[in-house]
Amino acid sequence: MITSPSNKSVREVIQLLQKAKVRTEKKLFVVEGVKMFLEAPEERIVKVYAAESFGKEMPPACREKLAALAGSPEIVSDDIFRKMSDTKTPQGILCVVRQSEYSMDRMLAAKEPLLVLLEDIQDPGNLGTMFRAGEGAGVTGILMSGNTVDIYNPKTIRSTMGSIYRMPFLYTDDMKETIRKLREKGTAVYAAHLQGAKVYDTCSYRGRTAFLIGNEANGLREETAACADASVRIPMEGKVESLNAAVAASVLLFEAARQRRAGN
Amino acid sequence: MITSPSNKSVREVIQLLQKAKVRTEKKLFVVEGVKMFLEAPEERIVKVYAAESFGKEMPPACREKLAALAGSPEIVSDDIFRKMSDTKTPQGILCVVRQSEYSMDRMLAAKEPLLVLLEDIQDPGNLGTMFRAGEGAGVTGILMSGNTVDIYNPKTIRSTMGSIYRMPFLYTDDMKETIRKLREKGTAVYAAHLQGAKVYDTCSYRGRTAFLIGNEANGLREETAACADASVRIPMEGKVESLNAAVAASVLLFEAARQRRAGN
Repeated sequence: MITSPSNKSVREVIQLLQKAKVRTEKKLFVVEGVKMFLEAPEERIVKVYAAESFGKEMPPACREKLAALAGSPEIVSDDIFRKMSDTKTPQGILCVVRQSEYSMDRMLAAKEPLLVLLEDIQDPGNLGTMFRAGEGAGVTGILMSGNTVDIYNPKTIRSTMGSIYRMPFLYTDDMKETIRKLREKGTAVYAAHLQGAKVYDTCSYRGRTAFLIGNEANGLREETAACADASVRIPMEGKVESLNAAVAASVLLFEAARQRRAGN
Repeated sequence: MITSPSNKSVREVIQLLQKAKVRTEKKLFVVEGVKMFLEAPEERIVKVYAAESFGKEMPPACREKLAALAGSPEIVSDDIFRKMSDTKTPQGILCVVRQSEYSMDRMLAAKEPLLVLLEDIQDPGNLGTMFRAGEGAGVTGILMSGNTVDIYNPKTIRSTMGSIYRMPFLYTDDMKETIRKLREKGTAVYAAHLQGAKVYDTCSYRGRTAFLIGNEANGLREETAACADASVRIPMEGKVESLNAAVAASVLLFEAARQRRAGN
């Protein structure tokens, strides 16, 4: 049992939780809690840590998964486990998982791709919520500008509720070039914009579609929005200036899902 | 200028930020930041506090609003202001605002009410986001169960982005009775449910409509859901078990807004 905060493994987990640079270098990330452990793809799990008290009364589903992994979790004293955790009330289990790499080709391989392009999203919770809602709406891939918050940020991971394991994604250094490529391959790109020329539900999203969503405070850069096929707006009542970025993305994506269902 | 942390006003603001009970007793709440100050209804502003450095270089819009209020802000040293603030990087202005009371009658007075009923929403950010998205979608009132997080929680207030000043709301101790009353007055109540009998976009929300949204982790209580006219589900792709509560509410509300626009 690990009981020392200076243990090498403990320090590695803390670094992986706190430092995006370390995550990128090691191509690893940390997930916490029972649900995130149970949904983690077996072949990507590098190591499992359990708090002493959790290890003694582990839910059967966790035992089964550990048996399938053919390995025992590393047991950590409850005190040290709390230090290793990013949450206020740790659930007692966390694991180190290998990052996945996705290609643009894979994202476009779907019959009718439904993509999300995110420019400079800053709030970890918003990003995770978009992964979760995106999976629910049938999104086939998420492309993010280099200045978007790290998808492996612990808060982002929690907000994905497991979608992080299943949603293909890529960071791109050149969003305008990415948009150009998508359009070249027949994907219509719609920029979500407060002054969008079209009301969002007047467009058809049944074909190859991508939605471009901007930063929470500033929206899309004009130069990025200008690369899209069209800009769409969500009409708003009252004195609301804008919607939360994850809400706006969800409204657009579930309109696309609605149209696609209706088209079947 | 206030420079002491034991100043009575300083302590009052801190108590109003931290304690729901104090807010309820005094029928006051605290808003922070330039936007929230500028949007605050003048007749409800009780007192304005500005940090010393902010007071010296106040944006013109803030000066104009203060002139309209015919009062000077209470100046507080930057150090003490930071202690009075709920945010990590205070903007330098906050104000104490009188709570508003709304009646069910007022909520139902709209030609075609669009209401949201919230059962035990726990996350302050989710609640605020629903106020914001609700106003955007044309919601005429929000009714909350007694166990819903306090709308005057500082994080909730921030997430409303000003909708807190404009959205009529009520807490109700008996959600089932509230639903019964609404239905009696001709309002159709739709329960958002993962196993809803109908796909949400197959119902018409053009008439008097209310959406019933449950707790983030547990959804609606079955006994509450059973009081509704119908239960509706948002079809989901992938392995997503549920949507974030604010996202689910927004998808439903903007579908209602879409139908209502299309009906005009």
